[in-house]
Amino acid sequence: MIVQVSAALEYEFFGSTQVVLEIQPATSPDQVIREESLTLPDVPWRSDVAPSGRRRLRGVVSGRVSLGYTGTIDNGSRALLPASGRMEAWSDLPDDVMPYLLPSRFCPSDSLSRFANRTFAEAGDGVARVMAVMDWIAEHVDYVPGASVAQTGADETFTTRAGVCRDFTHLAIALCRALNIPARAASVYALDLDPPDFHAVTEVYVGGAWWMVDPTRLAPVEGMVRIAEDRDAADIAFMTTDRPCTVISQTITVSRA
Amino acid sequence: MIVQVSAALEYEFFGSTQVVLEIQPATSPDQVIREESLTLPDVPWRSDVAPSGRRRLRGVVSGRVSLGYTGTIDNGSRALLPASGRMEAWSDLPDDVMPYLLPSRFCPSDSLSRFANRTFAEAGDGVARVMAVMDWIAEHVDYVPGASVAQTGADETFTTRAGVCRDFTHLAIALCRALNIPARAASVYALDLDPPDFHAVTEVYVGGAWWMVDPTRLAPVEGMVRIAEDRDAADIAFMTTDRPCTVISQTITVSRA
Amino acid sequence: MIVQVSAALEYEFFGSTQVVLEIQPATSPDQVIREESLTLPDVPWRSDVAPSGRRRLRGVVSGRVSLGYTGTIDNGSRALLPASGRMEAWSDLPDDVMPYLLPSRFCPSDSLSRFANRTFAEAGDGVARVMAVMDWIAEHVDYVPGASVAQTGADETFTTRAGVCRDFTHLAIALCRALNIPARAASVYALDLDPPDFHAVTEVYVGGAWWMVDPTRLAPVEGMVRIAEDRDAADIAFMTTDRPCTVISQTITVSRA
Amino acid sequence: MIVQVSAALEYEFFGSTQVVLEIQPATSPDQVIREESLTLPDVPWRSDVAPSGRRRLRGVVSGRVSLGYTGTIDNGSRALLPASGRMEAWSDLPDDVMPYLLPSRFCPSDSLSRFANRTFAEAGDGVARVMAVMDWIAEHVDYVPGASVAQTGADETFTTRAGVCRDFTHLAIALCRALNIPARAASVYALDLDPPDFHAVTEVYVGGAWWMVDPTRLAPVEGMVRIAEDRDAADIAFMTTDRPCTVISQTITVSRA
Repeated sequence: MIVQVSAALEYEFFGSTQVVLEIQPATSPDQVIREESLTLPDVPWRSDVAPSGRRRLRGVVSGRVSLGYTGTIDNGSRALLPASGRMEAWSDLPDDVMPYLLPSRFCPSDSLSRFANRTFAEAGDGVARVMAVMDWIAEHVDYVPGASVAQTGADETFTTRAGVCRDFTHLAIALCRALNIPARAASVYALDLDPPDFHAVTEVYVGGAWWMVDPTRLAPVEGMVRIAEDRDAADIAFMTTDRPCTVISQTITVSRA
Repeated sequence: MIVQVSAALEYEFFGSTQVVLEIQPATSPDQVIREESLTLPDVPWRSDVAPSGRRRLRGVVSGRVSLGYTGTIDNGSRALLPASGRMEAWSDLPDDVMPYLLPSRFCPSDSLSRFANRTFAEAGDGVARVMAVMDWIAEHVDYVPGASVAQTGADETFTTRAGVCRDFTHLAIALCRALNIPARAASVYALDLDPPDFHAVTEVYVGGAWWMVDPTRLAPVEGMVRIAEDRDAADIAFMTTDRPCTVISQTITVSRA
Repeated sequence: MIVQVSAALEYEFFGSTQVVLEIQPATSPDQVIREESLTLPDVPWRSDVAPSGRRRLRGVVSGRVSLGYTGTIDNGSRALLPASGRMEAWSDLPDDVMPYLLPSRFCPSDSLSRFANRTFAEAGDGVARVMAVMDWIAEHVDYVPGASVAQTGADETFTTRAGVCRDFTHLAIALCRALNIPARAASVYALDLDPPDFHAVTEVYVGGAWWMVDPTRLAPVEGMVRIAEDRDAADIAFMTTDRPCTVISQTITVSRA
Repeated sequence: MIVQVSAALEYEFFGSTQVVLEIQPATSPDQVIREESLTLPDVPWRSDVAPSGRRRLRGVVSGRVSLGYTGTIDNGSRALLPASGRMEAWSDLPDDVMPYLLPSRFCPSDSLSRFANRTFAEAGDGVARVMAVMDWIAEHVDYVPGASVAQTGADETFTTRAGVCRDFTHLAIALCRALNIPARAASVYALDLDPPDFHAVTEVYVGGAWWMVDPTRLAPVEGMVRIAEDRDAADIAFMTTDRPCTVISQTITVSRA
């Protein structure tokens, strides 16, 4: 699918502020950037591309700042989680997949281990287990804007049963990890998300590959353009700053080209 | 039932330490103290009896200290939670019952509200609802010594699904409160508890009266001798001190007279 | 001082909802209600007055509901925390003051004990200790709307160093309790608070009496009209409901008569 | 320094259990393995060496199992944190250092940001800032075995002011990250630690290099043999299992060869 995305962001920074931006879609094998343009304030920017294709911009800004990205991305036909697929024994997992079994800032899978193993013990292997987790979340957690804050972890979402996309994804990740399925978070531009916004989804490693799943079920995986993926939202924020700033406006658009 | 209880406690206090002791069974209408004796260090003690019959000792101690209580208590035939019994509307609850609907230190019923109301929505009224909560706890939470610390609240026990008697009781209380059933914690001497120890149980207000229930199912309610009851374990500790001390030994015995 | 207060509240309730309202100022010895009127939907209301003068309304409502209170209250000349005043030994505290030494839902004083005793060890007795706590909070905690949620406790505010009036008050209470000074929360109508709103302040027990203090320093104690006081915000909410509702509008006014 | 280390570990596993072992010292440039031997149960083991020299064993075990390692390691003369050294701007940090600025499972640096920046604002740059953090921890946190559990994070240690080596290290890491200094955890064999045990220390990135520091000040950095380093204790456990097991015995020895 060919998807057109844009982000128009405006902030007020107080004093000289270091920022890391991750708003450019990854140049990963499963998506091709047809064209793109970036609007940045005129200061030096360091740009990296990780081996995974994830792109990061670093700079120092101050005052009122506008940031923008527009791009046309062909995400191919993003493969959906197949109907079946086995999970690997730890010994068979690639080295770089291993960290995604461990707890992280917002995904304390260690705390959810008893619950997960008791609840999903009969859920079968691999894909069946992932599906059982996603069904459980859809049934038990309510999408409630304002129910969480930036510090909310999956343990709290598990308790309160309410949250937004990053909370849904953190809980899905924590449960999968507790069940021995490597899982990570991805930030995406999502077609058909209403209202349009940066979106956070889950990726699970089953049958020897990573698959994207949206625990909120708010947008189709086929229309997602991946920006970055890592342990959890702490690692893939579209903007990280070293001091607080004020949001003036954030406008995201995503459409079928 | 006539129950004989004793507590022989020894501590090392570092410097002058204020203590509140609640080791004497309550002189409440549902239990009669046949005889008792108290062993306290020879310092001034202030002794109070609350309207509920709960008894509290206050003093200041230091160094190596032995404290003891022995008593013979007739707890009548402690009434068991009946097979049915309605819960009251808030407007019909006595004033002094109202606080037991609200969250407390270890029972954040506010955080568990969505879960409780979704899970037990069909559980019926009053007693049926209490029974459903107790069954749920028995099925989903493991008794695991060492799984919790002094600061552990019911939200964490809900997440980790493991704890000891006070954790079970806190979770039972939090769930009942979230379901509009007033609930409180009671400290008791418990017959047939193995190993013998101070025990924490739940009391629920249904059908116009308070009923004692043990969410751990480790000891029969008939053999329990109530010491104190209040919002949660923070309020009914058998000993509260204003600085840390070291436990040398704590020996509890409970037997049928 | 004679203070005129009003609250005009409008909510949307979904289905039949039990509510407890505490919007009427207390009829306590330190404040006299000169005149007042209450606007309530036409359903049965149960009205209680606690021995402390605290007043509570209970009813069942549904749909779009307007609630209102206006009153003229003479709060005398509310005594300010004196320049000195000793704290009592536990043994000398009245029975009904004892609970305010213990941790509660939002004031886990147990967790803050080491910090408090180390930091304020030299702060002197009673009033001096209270003042040291208030100064510490003013210096170390930022008033930041949106930094906390309904579940935020004083341990989190202590960590993040940001919050609103209830967070300031919870932290003040937790620190005072950790230092052996009984402390509780009071809900008030506060003159000169900008913007006008229900306000939460701290009361400490020193020198044999309760004194009101505002850890946010946003409004003068002299202009405060007390509604209710208890362990923490969980106990003194101006409205408690047994299911979620939507706020349409809340307008508070407080002026000098 | 040439250091002789051994670990003799015995566990009871219940059913077939996947394990990851990290008990072998890293074969990193700053330490040379002179000789070593490993005692493992006779099942297939997968052994990896990460680019950093960190070594990981993966296998599946069950029943009563003994695991052992002995080695003689020359850790050269491990460089101590120099007296001065600047911290880098984000733009100048190597890509692989960037993750160590972000919060992780046990190091929620985001929550401690206000505190850190206010408290250490005047602490100077780089090394001076690290030293200020270490001094602050030494002054404000007590080493108290039993004060924490496996789930305890640096935010809780910050509140309670008590913990063991991993808590000290997590708090040091969280504070450094909040101050823009990349920081990570290292597991080590530590000479002169009493009692001998696996130890957790902090590594900070200043002046273009990583430096090891022990926030507990319980053992000299010169005598430390690094096993693994990563975001926090969740990532560098000496043993990770996919189900609970029982410790029969763990005996560590570390001596100067």
